[in-house]
Amino acid sequence: MTANEKLALLRLKMQDEGIDWFLIGSSDYHASEYVGDFFKVSEFFSGCTSDNVLLLIGRENAYLWTDGRYFISAAKELAGSSITLMKSGEKGVPTLEEFLRENVKKGETLAFDGRTINAEAGAAYDDILMEAGASLITDIDPADGIWKDRPALPVHPIFLVPDELAGASFAEKLEAVRGAMAEKKADYLMLSRLDDIAWLTNARGNDIFCNPVMLAYALVGKDSFHLFTEEEEVTDEFDDYCADRDITLHPYETVLDFLEGFSFDGSVMLEKSATSDAIYQIIANKADVVLAANPTERMKAVKNPVEIENIKKTYLMDSVALTHFIYWFKTNVGKMKITELSAAENLDARRAALPGYIELSFPTISAYGANAAMAHYAATEENQAEVEPHGFLLVDSGGQYMGGTTDVTRTMAAGELTAEEKRDFTLTLVANLNLLNARFLYGATGKVLDTYARSPLWEYGINYNHGTGHGIGYILNVHEGPQNIRWKFNPGQKEVPFEAGMIISDEPGVYIEGKYGIRIETILLTEAGIENEYGQFLKFLPLTWAPIDLDAVDTAYMQPRDIARLNDYHAKTFEKLAPYFEGEELAWLREATRPLPLIDKLTKQL
Amino acid sequence: MTANEKLALLRLKMQDEGIDWFLIGSSDYHASEYVGDFFKVSEFFSGCTSDNVLLLIGRENAYLWTDGRYFISAAKELAGSSITLMKSGEKGVPTLEEFLRENVKKGETLAFDGRTINAEAGAAYDDILMEAGASLITDIDPADGIWKDRPALPVHPIFLVPDELAGASFAEKLEAVRGAMAEKKADYLMLSRLDDIAWLTNARGNDIFCNPVMLAYALVGKDSFHLFTEEEEVTDEFDDYCADRDITLHPYETVLDFLEGFSFDGSVMLEKSATSDAIYQIIANKADVVLAANPTERMKAVKNPVEIENIKKTYLMDSVALTHFIYWFKTNVGKMKITELSAAENLDARRAALPGYIELSFPTISAYGANAAMAHYAATEENQAEVEPHGFLLVDSGGQYMGGTTDVTRTMAAGELTAEEKRDFTLTLVANLNLLNARFLYGATGKVLDTYARSPLWEYGINYNHGTGHGIGYILNVHEGPQNIRWKFNPGQKEVPFEAGMIISDEPGVYIEGKYGIRIETILLTEAGIENEYGQFLKFLPLTWAPIDLDAVDTAYMQPRDIARLNDYHAKTFEKLAPYFEGEELAWLREATRPLPLIDKLTKQL
Repeated sequence: MTANEKLALLRLKMQDEGIDWFLIGSSDYHASEYVGDFFKVSEFFSGCTSDNVLLLIGRENAYLWTDGRYFISAAKELAGSSITLMKSGEKGVPTLEEFLRENVKKGETLAFDGRTINAEAGAAYDDILMEAGASLITDIDPADGIWKDRPALPVHPIFLVPDELAGASFAEKLEAVRGAMAEKKADYLMLSRLDDIAWLTNARGNDIFCNPVMLAYALVGKDSFHLFTEEEEVTDEFDDYCADRDITLHPYETVLDFLEGFSFDGSVMLEKSATSDAIYQIIANKADVVLAANPTERMKAVKNPVEIENIKKTYLMDSVALTHFIYWFKTNVGKMKITELSAAENLDARRAALPGYIELSFPTISAYGANAAMAHYAATEENQAEVEPHGFLLVDSGGQYMGGTTDVTRTMAAGELTAEEKRDFTLTLVANLNLLNARFLYGATGKVLDTYARSPLWEYGINYNHGTGHGIGYILNVHEGPQNIRWKFNPGQKEVPFEAGMIISDEPGVYIEGKYGIRIETILLTEAGIENEYGQFLKFLPLTWAPIDLDAVDTAYMQPRDIARLNDYHAKTFEKLAPYFEGEELAWLREATRPLPLIDKLTKQL
Repeated sequence: MTANEKLALLRLKMQDEGIDWFLIGSSDYHASEYVGDFFKVSEFFSGCTSDNVLLLIGRENAYLWTDGRYFISAAKELAGSSITLMKSGEKGVPTLEEFLRENVKKGETLAFDGRTINAEAGAAYDDILMEAGASLITDIDPADGIWKDRPALPVHPIFLVPDELAGASFAEKLEAVRGAMAEKKADYLMLSRLDDIAWLTNARGNDIFCNPVMLAYALVGKDSFHLFTEEEEVTDEFDDYCADRDITLHPYETVLDFLEGFSFDGSVMLEKSATSDAIYQIIANKADVVLAANPTERMKAVKNPVEIENIKKTYLMDSVALTHFIYWFKTNVGKMKITELSAAENLDARRAALPGYIELSFPTISAYGANAAMAHYAATEENQAEVEPHGFLLVDSGGQYMGGTTDVTRTMAAGELTAEEKRDFTLTLVANLNLLNARFLYGATGKVLDTYARSPLWEYGINYNHGTGHGIGYILNVHEGPQNIRWKFNPGQKEVPFEAGMIISDEPGVYIEGKYGIRIETILLTEAGIENEYGQFLKFLPLTWAPIDLDAVDTAYMQPRDIARLNDYHAKTFEKLAPYFEGEELAWLREATRPLPLIDKLTKQL
């Protein structure tokens, strides 16, 4: 079926049900960033693979909102359909809210599946419809009866992270969560985010590609714990684990009915943006709601000493594998055929051979030349570049291990570089090192920190259209909050102070359309610095130890301090990695991490 | 009368009126930062001169909240009174709101003068009292009948800024304001902020020390303009000016009655934090309120080409006077007796002699040695330091001219300096130059920009407990919004993107208690930089051209780029100032602005 044929079927259904507008989001029931195939309803109807979509279908017209990362791909995917692409944030393009205000008429009805729209958004739509004198249906799934070959919900056995690997038992974490509930005078906590539940229970799954989470809800009481998971995923081990810990297991699909029937003995704490409208409506009708950030989010973000110890070991192991790959690439490029996919496969195989390997933490991005300038580029067998002996290969990759989740980007010279390529690589490097070496007072948020990385590029009139850093889970999602580093926060994005124990990526870049893309990403651990009359200072410790390609560095764009910082990073990298290298590889590593002279020529940055 | 005697009188009044709690703020009727003597009611009752006070008087106890800038002075001023100092923001100190929630009981009554509490704060107090089952009286002035020798409202004739000096006529500004009202679908705009009204009407007054504003309110209609000013301040010229422009003049004190009696033909736009609770309550009872920032604020902040031209000339003239003063200081220190006040008087006299001089833009801060480490230090005849031939003299000063409002800080070596003093001076300089040379994308707010200045100090574990930059008026208040540069925004503080035409101070500092204080403040004009695929870049142009004391610079703490930036600023300073200097003074200026070698020794900042 084409998109238009699917829309025609949906419009028949809309007619039957008296629906004038159908709104379809791209989220699952848990406000996840990435979702399982079962939940890709907006993709089914529109063909658009973006993970940030709002698809609005009217009786005659249809509109799809997505963000700048996906304008190009969405335009291609929507070609031939009757769906109008709405480029969010572009001048003259109304937001969905503005569009609804202008177009929904009195007496009309809008429908969405209340399980896939978060409660914050749901409330906003509800307000708009109320004002317009229109009505709302939220208990309907647009795919029902139309998406015939819809994939089933994923089923993968739940597995456990042993307490000694987690650093804190379920009981200890639960006590902390109940403490946070008591602080807010809440009697229950409703958890819907999959990584919050995985962290709290020390359980993991495989229900979302590269995200080791299981589909679940949890209702935490003062002395009860209700967990909703797919029955087929409950192993004997997990069943025993729950029984021993007074975790009451329920079938995943019963959560709404359970909440409908439950007698809440007190108030319920929840975070609207992390809770579906369906769940929120049921709870808000029955109990006092305490609106607050999920306490699990911050607890999860501040890694405990055991986690930190394991993360350090895991990142070193991962860095060793990456650096072996870099050696392979640098010594073979120009001598043998290397494609984007063959490079990725080479690296992926090295990770897969590491102890504790679970899966990749995301599909490896291997992008050569102009391909690397495209955000979210993914090479395919049919459509991929062969590396030529010039320009850059950008490789952004990571793994899930029983000991941590990794993420790293290195950009490597494949041969000759233009002066412009070297300049932009060097500026990206200066940006990366500037953030890596930041010393800052407690209270600084990601907006304060972003300037460390972005300012060296701004100085040259260059910007990158993405954030500088994101949090990273522990045997969990490669993107996690609440901390992040960016210069603009969208409404709803959290801007929180950094704390010792938080992990953050440091990944500035330069992207020149049609030419090349550069990104250098090193993962950092936030640590306590000095404490004095001004307060508590914080600093970063790199977790990633992999050489920066000196073939691409032009020290004319560096201050002596920048060069000293690079030399320092390389000296430590050599020290950490050397035990894992020998012979020619060791000699190569020594050369790849050699110190550069501090003052080579007068710098151009004066 | 002592504070306690005054409180006793107030408590008698409270008993008569059935009042259990009296709340007294330090603001005037216009949410001004600085206020006339008539409005200093909290100072009258408490003796505390802080300009950020909330004084709460109960039947038996009294409490005064103020912020960190005033903890030391307030403690001294409250000594001997029965008032408890509440240090806002300190651990374990409840906010006023928290205190009211804990202490106000059902059936009790709290009073405040609704003209002196802004509507945002008023609504918060009202909510707390409602919850407590307490009631509120807001039409009572605590000073009535008690403050016998209360100063009268200030009376100074209103004067005009001619259109050719303002760069835009009242009619042009009014059209823009009405455009902003139309955008918000508002039929009226209620203006209470004195500088907003001064800007819009191109009128000025002298009702607040160093702030050339007149006491006024304005109600802007679609085709009406009601202006409330003190009748004694209306000159014949201003009367004619208003008559010619359809400005309806009303006596200042009639504003509340006027609003009570007015038939609003539509909705009223206002900003709650810039409007007194008294005004807000009257309007909200009679008309739909459109809550929005005063459109005048942003319009006033973005200087027009005529203003910019005049500001540049005025800052150059002011810089010449300051530099003559610096010459006088540097060549006479150690040879003649110089005190903090004699230095200030020398500088003030030079400004007073300049064409178009109106008054100082704030009382000159002249602080030697350890005195400069105290925020808001003010030398007095009885209590001031004599400059000795070592350490620093910090001078923060500015003037009001018919052509602009200036502000500048230079810190000068009075003789020998310690290595620590030189290091901290140099770090402050690097911070100042880093912000001055920033290139940034449109969209960057003061939090993004703050890092440019603060990071060089953070690197050494140093912080300054104030913002980095504030906006500055044009023949108006030396502090104006909405833009400012700071790393933490308090609730209610505005965080707005910078725009070309905005003026901002760049004033990092180092303050070592008991030892010394350093601040370097240069005023910057925001200008358009390049526009490219990433957006519109912005940059700063210095308005202040005055030498940085090279006697205090240790280039070991500078990168070559920092030194190049200093040399560049000094080369331009010499070029701008040289025409106004001759003979020995010119030779001194050349030496004071000489270029430093880019690479002197290997820097310590590696």
